[in-house]
Amino acid sequence: MRKLRLGMIGGGPGAFIGKIHRIAAQLDNQIELVCGAFSSDPQKSIEFGCSLYLDKSRCYGSYQEMLHQEALRQDDRIDMVAIVTPNHLHFPIAKMAIEYGFNVISDKPATLNLGEAIALEKLILKHNINYALTHTYTGYPMVKEARHRVIQGDLGKIVKIVVEYPQGWLSSKDDESTKQASWRLNPALSGISCCMADIGVHASNLAEYISGQEITEICADLNTTVDGRLLDDDGTVLLRFNHGARGVLIASQISIGEENNLNIKVYGDKASLTWSQHNPNELLMKYPNQSSRIIRSGVGELCEYALDNIRTPAGHPEGYLEAFANIYRQFSKLLKNPDGKQYDVPGIKQAIRGMAFIENTVAASQSSQKWHTFNIASPSTLAEIDNEKN
Amino acid sequence: MRKLRLGMIGGGPGAFIGKIHRIAAQLDNQIELVCGAFSSDPQKSIEFGCSLYLDKSRCYGSYQEMLHQEALRQDDRIDMVAIVTPNHLHFPIAKMAIEYGFNVISDKPATLNLGEAIALEKLILKHNINYALTHTYTGYPMVKEARHRVIQGDLGKIVKIVVEYPQGWLSSKDDESTKQASWRLNPALSGISCCMADIGVHASNLAEYISGQEITEICADLNTTVDGRLLDDDGTVLLRFNHGARGVLIASQISIGEENNLNIKVYGDKASLTWSQHNPNELLMKYPNQSSRIIRSGVGELCEYALDNIRTPAGHPEGYLEAFANIYRQFSKLLKNPDGKQYDVPGIKQAIRGMAFIENTVAASQSSQKWHTFNIASPSTLAEIDNEKN
Amino acid sequence: MRKLRLGMIGGGPGAFIGKIHRIAAQLDNQIELVCGAFSSDPQKSIEFGCSLYLDKSRCYGSYQEMLHQEALRQDDRIDMVAIVTPNHLHFPIAKMAIEYGFNVISDKPATLNLGEAIALEKLILKHNINYALTHTYTGYPMVKEARHRVIQGDLGKIVKIVVEYPQGWLSSKDDESTKQASWRLNPALSGISCCMADIGVHASNLAEYISGQEITEICADLNTTVDGRLLDDDGTVLLRFNHGARGVLIASQISIGEENNLNIKVYGDKASLTWSQHNPNELLMKYPNQSSRIIRSGVGELCEYALDNIRTPAGHPEGYLEAFANIYRQFSKLLKNPDGKQYDVPGIKQAIRGMAFIENTVAASQSSQKWHTFNIASPSTLAEIDNEKN
Amino acid sequence: MRKLRLGMIGGGPGAFIGKIHRIAAQLDNQIELVCGAFSSDPQKSIEFGCSLYLDKSRCYGSYQEMLHQEALRQDDRIDMVAIVTPNHLHFPIAKMAIEYGFNVISDKPATLNLGEAIALEKLILKHNINYALTHTYTGYPMVKEARHRVIQGDLGKIVKIVVEYPQGWLSSKDDESTKQASWRLNPALSGISCCMADIGVHASNLAEYISGQEITEICADLNTTVDGRLLDDDGTVLLRFNHGARGVLIASQISIGEENNLNIKVYGDKASLTWSQHNPNELLMKYPNQSSRIIRSGVGELCEYALDNIRTPAGHPEGYLEAFANIYRQFSKLLKNPDGKQYDVPGIKQAIRGMAFIENTVAASQSSQKWHTFNIASPSTLAEIDNEKN
Repeated sequence: MRKLRLGMIGGGPGAFIGKIHRIAAQLDNQIELVCGAFSSDPQKSIEFGCSLYLDKSRCYGSYQEMLHQEALRQDDRIDMVAIVTPNHLHFPIAKMAIEYGFNVISDKPATLNLGEAIALEKLILKHNINYALTHTYTGYPMVKEARHRVIQGDLGKIVKIVVEYPQGWLSSKDDESTKQASWRLNPALSGISCCMADIGVHASNLAEYISGQEITEICADLNTTVDGRLLDDDGTVLLRFNHGARGVLIASQISIGEENNLNIKVYGDKASLTWSQHNPNELLMKYPNQSSRIIRSGVGELCEYALDNIRTPAGHPEGYLEAFANIYRQFSKLLKNPDGKQYDVPGIKQAIRGMAFIENTVAASQSSQKWHTFNIASPSTLAEIDNEKN
Repeated sequence: MRKLRLGMIGGGPGAFIGKIHRIAAQLDNQIELVCGAFSSDPQKSIEFGCSLYLDKSRCYGSYQEMLHQEALRQDDRIDMVAIVTPNHLHFPIAKMAIEYGFNVISDKPATLNLGEAIALEKLILKHNINYALTHTYTGYPMVKEARHRVIQGDLGKIVKIVVEYPQGWLSSKDDESTKQASWRLNPALSGISCCMADIGVHASNLAEYISGQEITEICADLNTTVDGRLLDDDGTVLLRFNHGARGVLIASQISIGEENNLNIKVYGDKASLTWSQHNPNELLMKYPNQSSRIIRSGVGELCEYALDNIRTPAGHPEGYLEAFANIYRQFSKLLKNPDGKQYDVPGIKQAIRGMAFIENTVAASQSSQKWHTFNIASPSTLAEIDNEKN
Repeated sequence: MRKLRLGMIGGGPGAFIGKIHRIAAQLDNQIELVCGAFSSDPQKSIEFGCSLYLDKSRCYGSYQEMLHQEALRQDDRIDMVAIVTPNHLHFPIAKMAIEYGFNVISDKPATLNLGEAIALEKLILKHNINYALTHTYTGYPMVKEARHRVIQGDLGKIVKIVVEYPQGWLSSKDDESTKQASWRLNPALSGISCCMADIGVHASNLAEYISGQEITEICADLNTTVDGRLLDDDGTVLLRFNHGARGVLIASQISIGEENNLNIKVYGDKASLTWSQHNPNELLMKYPNQSSRIIRSGVGELCEYALDNIRTPAGHPEGYLEAFANIYRQFSKLLKNPDGKQYDVPGIKQAIRGMAFIENTVAASQSSQKWHTFNIASPSTLAEIDNEKN
Repeated sequence: MRKLRLGMIGGGPGAFIGKIHRIAAQLDNQIELVCGAFSSDPQKSIEFGCSLYLDKSRCYGSYQEMLHQEALRQDDRIDMVAIVTPNHLHFPIAKMAIEYGFNVISDKPATLNLGEAIALEKLILKHNINYALTHTYTGYPMVKEARHRVIQGDLGKIVKIVVEYPQGWLSSKDDESTKQASWRLNPALSGISCCMADIGVHASNLAEYISGQEITEICADLNTTVDGRLLDDDGTVLLRFNHGARGVLIASQISIGEENNLNIKVYGDKASLTWSQHNPNELLMKYPNQSSRIIRSGVGELCEYALDNIRTPAGHPEGYLEAFANIYRQFSKLLKNPDGKQYDVPGIKQAIRGMAFIENTVAASQSSQKWHTFNIASPSTLAEIDNEKN
């Protein structure tokens, strides 16, 4: 028995998401960060690794060097690689890591485009490695409880889903100068979308995760509200799901005063539920002409998926870092027992659906036709995906 | 100086909205209900009127009788008629009342279809009477404050509007047996829409009222989720406004557990605001990277339009009846001083825009084309309307 | 069948509570204001009455004149008198009204001191009239639902009650200049207490009303936080109730930013409940290690006492005016059927307990002893009161 | 540069707070758990340590062994000891650790009684070690922001403080069987109080921390509501502070349905503030007759003390574990730079005031006298404490 060993690519000085990954990975004491290539500048990368108390010999100047050197180690080589770079590097890094035989946990969106995501799946299958995508919000215990209640039929047939992800941090020209903003608004680094790729994809993932349904048709209206931008900063997508639900997805990065206000309402023909990241330890269940119920983390009967992701007793709020850590928690369980039971880890299927969501919404937005079939590449690819479905 | 005299048509035993109108009309002690034709059954009408302590001689067996008899009275004839019947009677009653020279206050939607609304406008202009439409929610003081803040530029240029009006009371087949439900789901009595005509039109009115902008294009997705219904019970409409804002309107009568959860978010490029009928005495203002502000009824500096519609000091919540009474309050001021300053009363313009909203969304929903121009009948009608614009 | 006829004493130009009483009395169309003595200045009184559209002959120059003249009328004399003057006039007016045989509805506190309240009870019993005290907050439907749930045992044995009534409107010297403030801080007009007499007494009434228990012992700490005041503007009272519950009552008029934030938490050994005037249409029920339930006005099964005081369907918020109107609603039912079933109207018992609360807390606050028995005058008075208990 | 090395005493299988300490200590990657004596059963202790991936040679059978063996190590001995046992062992362990020269971070309450706390201070001064007490709630960034705003005068002179800490987990006899409950209700292990020692002391600490004032007088009413208990499970304490504020502290472990609902309201003569652990990333500021402001973690200008304890951007909620980690974060900064600037770490002064709070409230509760001076032992002790005051 030992901790799993993690190497990180990206996440150097000033990066937001790299720090989050490091805290999340190590929170449960099951994973240890042992090496990294934190910056494209070798000197910065090494200095930064040392500041994290890593062994200097495992602070690498490039990801290629890291993957190569780690592959050469015998007894203490890494078990997995965390990819926390801008989007355009996700695929080449994941590809190389997989070819070296390392398991991968990647920030989202999985790749720069859908083609890469499909290629990535082939690599994963060929090399038989494990892959996780950090759709953080599905790590919240009450999101898992929500999914469980939908799946077991507490809400009846799902008829409507409203999911919103408003932010305001890109509401003006002045906001574009930060490191975070500049690459997201640059098509070469971010891909064909800013808002949908950055947060819309979280919202669509959350809707599919909780409902257990898949988007089959969309009608999209993406906007670029601030002059001079090349990518969308706001948008609304009407949704139809494979078991009949209708939906609306609203994502925005120009909604002033909204912080990170992801929230979802799922309406069935027996009951409905509401969850919001601003109050993440709570799930509201509503019924026809009855009192509503507040389901809270740590209180009363919760499903095993929720319970397995709660660390504190009732009334001790857990937050974003803990939700993020739950992705690592479940992935580390999967790695220790890869052939065993199904773990609740977002993986390559979600990666492909996410990239498809981005490409489909951008295409649909440019069309004068209302409804568009949600395509996931070629029929052969679809067949492969179907085989995996649980 | 005397109270204004009101006659009511509709609103007999078991009617919800008739009672609301009676309370609202008389709340401020400026209007007195003196007569009525409360039911299509003459006997019931008279009995009901007596139960309201009306003079039996003014409890009429039909609206025709009421309008005719009241017109014959000299000193104490009514000043205005309140129409609170199902939709299909709105126009014929309003027409007759106007032709007898009575002012009219009507429940919404104004008529059964847009053509009637346009005809109604002509009658109003010809007979020079005053007409009010009870778009109740614009009677809330904090809605007026919201409008004021948008109009005076506190939010900057408006870029996005999200308005929702979810209810759950028609979520199942079983809900259709009530009196309220049965006429709303019957095209002969309700018109071409249930959900959009009943509540969607409130949401579109609220969005236009607060933003000071008009809808110019729509993309609509109306649903009938419960089998066997002839009209929509749910829908989403994407919106474009004449000064550039984008928007989403979500209305639903099958969202289980939602009571009457009308709420709106308006985002500008300087600030944003949020208002919800569940907490109607509060307005939330948000700013870029600053603390949000809670504007509350009775607290601090409010605009004169808000102040003129508040009856209680801070911390004494006012609700739906008071908002409804504010429509009557402003209409009674208008009637006493018809040539004076502009009063904040929803009138025939809102009636026409509302009927146009219903017809346009139904048409757009049936189309495979994404965007549709929001039409208000013929160019000549549009010209008349433009002349009235403030 | 006719409306009940009401005469008002006090409540002239600029008075807050007089206007509230007029709206509340007439909201349900069962009571009509027909006369008044609105001001101690006869000219002002008459002008004000005329502005309310009263018959000039029934706009009186003094309360003595009003009571005398109304008593002389045959067919249309008033049924009841509403007393809405400053505290020091409550008793003399009530006394005269009772001696003329009029029913009385009085603003609280009932009198200037406990002795007057006890004398008042004797008058009421002697003249066999009906008396109501406007403890407004017990008029909220969800407060009635709360009481019902406690009484029927849903919470088990009550162990703890926390009631708060914070306001901030007297937080500074500058606030004292208003009409409302100046008499409340003047012992000659207000009695021996400001904060406890004005709002503490509402809180103690609410605690006794919901819990069905009576305060038996107190420990009080009243404060005068603003220099130069002669009366308390803040205070905390520890409570013991007759069936074993402990409690805390916090009332304050110097809690800046608090509007009228009356709220109560009642803890039993099976469940607990929370209610707040800021969100009055909602009652929160909590259970040991189970989901909490949100009980909302108009939703699901409510007790008959709640239902009888609700005017709007679910999701149409009712507020302070409606709660106030419920006191009049129940009193008018009582007057029409005085020998019938028990109506839920706060009366002389609550008046006496309220005055006792004020006197006991002021006395206890001045003592260095911790606990004080809650005294209601002499043993004989107590015996009389016991006889009335339901 | 290296991580600080931590040894833990207590916190074995099934312990709640031990796990919390381990996560909190290591969250920021500045501290490494390297050894422990986790259970009084040596075998269990070693097995548990191994399950945490510790070197077996540093999994000790007793705390005495651990402290002795660690003291003998040269290059890699621990820097500090975390004490997470039941209360009665806090002092003997802390004493031994200090005498071996280790820094100490202890769960609260610091000791079994005030005498031990005073003795502990002498040991700390004599051996010149650093000592921290995990008053977790002062680790929340918005609590620090609250303190900052009070100290810099934004609220003016503080006049009233209301602090509540309700829980329901000991509301019935049945709840006593858990490990957590049984020692807390046992005077031999817990001391002279359950509720005040377990949570009341957190509330008093929070009130003193935010207000910058010290309690000088108290009036206490402690209760034992469940039959057969030897210690208090509920209580209310009236407070007077050294700069004139009045206050109320309500702590309860029998308030059914309350989870861990610590909340505080501080009223000044210019403004007031509200904070609640249920919504910990938010601070509400209220002003006289102005809009209230919502201060949120990560949004707008915050003080350096808050900013130094935030890990995520706006809208990514942090919770209890992060607040706990902030105590370790600041303590590790202090240890690395012990002679430098003042760090915001609760220490021996808070330990002594906490034990004094417990002893004073228990004594005051048993007295029939209302007010009691808040005593901290002998005059000489008081003098020492005064010298430390900032």
